[in-house]
Amino acid sequence: MDYKLAVRDNHTADTIINIAGKAGITRIGKGYCTIIAGPCAVESREKYLEIALKVKNMGAHILRGGAFKPRTSPYSFAGLGVEGLKILEEARDITGLPVVTELMDIRDLEQVYRYSDIIQIGSRNMQNFSLLREMGRVDKPIMVKRGLSATIEEWLLAAEYVLCEGNKEVILCERGIRTFEVMTRNTVDIAAVALLKDLSHLPVIVDPSHATGQRNLVKPVAMAALAAGADGLMIEVHQNPEEALSDGPQSLTPDLFRQVVKEARDLAALNKQIFQ
Amino acid sequence: MDYKLAVRDNHTADTIINIAGKAGITRIGKGYCTIIAGPCAVESREKYLEIALKVKNMGAHILRGGAFKPRTSPYSFAGLGVEGLKILEEARDITGLPVVTELMDIRDLEQVYRYSDIIQIGSRNMQNFSLLREMGRVDKPIMVKRGLSATIEEWLLAAEYVLCEGNKEVILCERGIRTFEVMTRNTVDIAAVALLKDLSHLPVIVDPSHATGQRNLVKPVAMAALAAGADGLMIEVHQNPEEALSDGPQSLTPDLFRQVVKEARDLAALNKQIFQ
Amino acid sequence: MDYKLAVRDNHTADTIINIAGKAGITRIGKGYCTIIAGPCAVESREKYLEIALKVKNMGAHILRGGAFKPRTSPYSFAGLGVEGLKILEEARDITGLPVVTELMDIRDLEQVYRYSDIIQIGSRNMQNFSLLREMGRVDKPIMVKRGLSATIEEWLLAAEYVLCEGNKEVILCERGIRTFEVMTRNTVDIAAVALLKDLSHLPVIVDPSHATGQRNLVKPVAMAALAAGADGLMIEVHQNPEEALSDGPQSLTPDLFRQVVKEARDLAALNKQIFQ
Amino acid sequence: MDYKLAVRDNHTADTIINIAGKAGITRIGKGYCTIIAGPCAVESREKYLEIALKVKNMGAHILRGGAFKPRTSPYSFAGLGVEGLKILEEARDITGLPVVTELMDIRDLEQVYRYSDIIQIGSRNMQNFSLLREMGRVDKPIMVKRGLSATIEEWLLAAEYVLCEGNKEVILCERGIRTFEVMTRNTVDIAAVALLKDLSHLPVIVDPSHATGQRNLVKPVAMAALAAGADGLMIEVHQNPEEALSDGPQSLTPDLFRQVVKEARDLAALNKQIFQ
Repeated sequence: MDYKLAVRDNHTADTIINIAGKAGITRIGKGYCTIIAGPCAVESREKYLEIALKVKNMGAHILRGGAFKPRTSPYSFAGLGVEGLKILEEARDITGLPVVTELMDIRDLEQVYRYSDIIQIGSRNMQNFSLLREMGRVDKPIMVKRGLSATIEEWLLAAEYVLCEGNKEVILCERGIRTFEVMTRNTVDIAAVALLKDLSHLPVIVDPSHATGQRNLVKPVAMAALAAGADGLMIEVHQNPEEALSDGPQSLTPDLFRQVVKEARDLAALNKQIFQ
Repeated sequence: MDYKLAVRDNHTADTIINIAGKAGITRIGKGYCTIIAGPCAVESREKYLEIALKVKNMGAHILRGGAFKPRTSPYSFAGLGVEGLKILEEARDITGLPVVTELMDIRDLEQVYRYSDIIQIGSRNMQNFSLLREMGRVDKPIMVKRGLSATIEEWLLAAEYVLCEGNKEVILCERGIRTFEVMTRNTVDIAAVALLKDLSHLPVIVDPSHATGQRNLVKPVAMAALAAGADGLMIEVHQNPEEALSDGPQSLTPDLFRQVVKEARDLAALNKQIFQ
Repeated sequence: MDYKLAVRDNHTADTIINIAGKAGITRIGKGYCTIIAGPCAVESREKYLEIALKVKNMGAHILRGGAFKPRTSPYSFAGLGVEGLKILEEARDITGLPVVTELMDIRDLEQVYRYSDIIQIGSRNMQNFSLLREMGRVDKPIMVKRGLSATIEEWLLAAEYVLCEGNKEVILCERGIRTFEVMTRNTVDIAAVALLKDLSHLPVIVDPSHATGQRNLVKPVAMAALAAGADGLMIEVHQNPEEALSDGPQSLTPDLFRQVVKEARDLAALNKQIFQ
Repeated sequence: MDYKLAVRDNHTADTIINIAGKAGITRIGKGYCTIIAGPCAVESREKYLEIALKVKNMGAHILRGGAFKPRTSPYSFAGLGVEGLKILEEARDITGLPVVTELMDIRDLEQVYRYSDIIQIGSRNMQNFSLLREMGRVDKPIMVKRGLSATIEEWLLAAEYVLCEGNKEVILCERGIRTFEVMTRNTVDIAAVALLKDLSHLPVIVDPSHATGQRNLVKPVAMAALAAGADGLMIEVHQNPEEALSDGPQSLTPDLFRQVVKEARDLAALNKQIFQ
């Protein structure tokens, strides 16, 4: 296969990504258990700042929140755009935590770059090769989510697109693949996590929210991810999931999130991971 | 579901797309059998002009050829870029046939628009929503290829992104979906063709080359597509498939293409389609 | 791969199966277009004899009807059992047509053997290896339906189980595979038909009823199957599909079946197949 | 859906299965972590007794070993048959541990019943409905492995076939499903484990050996299974995997198995499961 930089062959040391924030340095990679949390989309300034503080106080290390949202239908809520980015910046200032948000359109790069600490390339853009190449020229970490039906090989080659342009800070995020099963939104490929930690030096995190689509499955799948060797989790949390503008059924309440963090902490200890 | 414009509910008449070229008007849609042919990628001026004339003389109605190629690996041949577009323009002049080529990056829109008659959105960009929206503001037909694991619903909603911005000329192209089967490159979803002709007013064509990945399967799958109700075919043809820079194993030789056209003509007659 | 008998390597001539019935010999294999028709299940003597005569008069060559039905739920109608077999026998006498019916349980072999001309092994038993081996010791043709997620290789090896025990009369029946698509019941793998006609000498028929699960898709998919090279079709027909005890939504009315036969006849003529 | 007995609606208490053996009672179900281990197939008396004692000494609670093996090709090693069953019995006597083995053919029921403590219905027979019904009339626990592409609903209905005939002792075993991914043998559906523990009262175990097909993935996937809530594991262990007659690449060496047991013990403690 055509990997050069994404695999261990020429890069035996694990890639550890350091993100400097007001609250200190946050690390992602082998040996650390890193929790990314927040709502699917930034819906309003008040709501976002409230949930950002909550998840911070419960133990989250990085904030998530979409300003540009990829939606299957052109008639669905597609995010607040730049206004949403500015809210993320304010949350970053207040909490001291770094933020990750999705870039969908290369024309928004300057703005997304300015307001975020990690740039997310979503599943639907995992083979948007010109976007990937551009990410290779940016000096911020890039989180590449697995495509809806991307093979592990294709996913690593998507990372390779970024790496080969010079950006060494790529994070892989498993978020479930598309199968025939209909009782869950996607099928989380837990073996891929273990396989990638073996084959690649890159950090691997798991998004149990999109992977399952069901609130009650988020905690067990999150624990499975850590037990399989994941370096962290990305979890959707909303004050009031019933009122969420997107992904309500899979969003945790703050109380459920607190339990996930507690159990993740215990499992990280068993795994000898540092829970920052 | 969230369709408004892509389905028959509010648009009972079949959409027929007329493309004016030097050789007259080429039509795509219900009642016509339209053949798009050419190599996967434009590889050189000489080779492209030669094959363009050949497929024209054998009965092709539209030329295909990639100038910007989406490649799984960053190290593969990715097309000649603008130089390739200029070769397409020359072929268009010489043959009098319209051309279709893929747009991958929104920043290339002006160039691709200038040199092509139909703009193709490839499988990997079927949910590149900002690209789709931009296509809705263009006054040329857009061919939306089905995503590698896109449901029929998602595919129609991708068309809806284009339609809802004002461009009414969308062509759907089935090119096979990803399944567990490994003896073919993809699994062509023949029932989707029939279902779409029933549900939607848009033209539907089938790409048996990408769908099967095997030269010897192109003709039978092409005939199956027409028998199922497809409005046309898009077929890869190369002077010397063994030397093709991409997709050699699925490219037809000119001789095989001639046979496909002959049988397509017979089947179109049985289906009472006009073979232009 | 482990094929010896199912592929052309050692058996270049196409296998043609001859089934003697009161109305003469019915042939299945290369060069013939054979139509198998009837309801999903034998529901009652009166209804079965009525529909059997209808489909015969409309051009069917072989009757189908389930006496033992594999049902996902233990609480669904599972067929009339031996009583159903006797009704099939009566229909065979009255129409002069051969019958095909499914064997699910090896303990029913004697009865199913006695009352049927072709024994069907259903999708769910495609890897019931002891049942397959037993079919190899029977002197009647065996129709092996493709498993719900069987690869082409596994399907050919299922045929090999029958062939290697000595029974040379195996018919392959494509009935759709399981994919992520939800708008059709299964995804018919049309390229598999062409690939098998190339790779194997065995007859290949297609069941567009189970493959699509939708009445309005049966005709276009049936035509696609013949265009791709299938040697015949197996189609569910019911006097009153709304009242069918199983598979109503995909069963054709007699009027729709008549149209399928008419178009199949035209396509067979184009393909130079004998429509018996 | 058509569940009555497999789900919690009418059966709120978790089903705990007690298997009496010479070494005492082994329990499977909520609150217990149960390890089933042994080679894929019983290959010879000497080798089986040796590995049986090894896995027992390392902490296994139940022995596995196939006497009747379902093989994709009719030309592969298919097990020792009744001779294999007798070796299992001897291993049971020597170790005091219960044994589980697969029943493929209803005609072998008497023998398999006689020599085993748990009867396994394999993936390929998950919808062999007459076999399932017969299992409902047996007074031993039945382990129903998930079909290669069975939905969770179909799997529960397979259990329902056993339960509705009167046998209340059904164990569900997740062993991976078929997807497009080719770097692992199957894709283990870890969310299904959590979902089933929520929806059903039946014990759920995971087979990380078949699920991954790769030795180095067995431990992380086994730990993921326990973290997701599985009640146990079924693991292939072989003295010398390179020489195994089947499933060598996924079989653990005894040393690797020892590590799995050690980590499973730690994780069971964290989960407050009894490791017997």
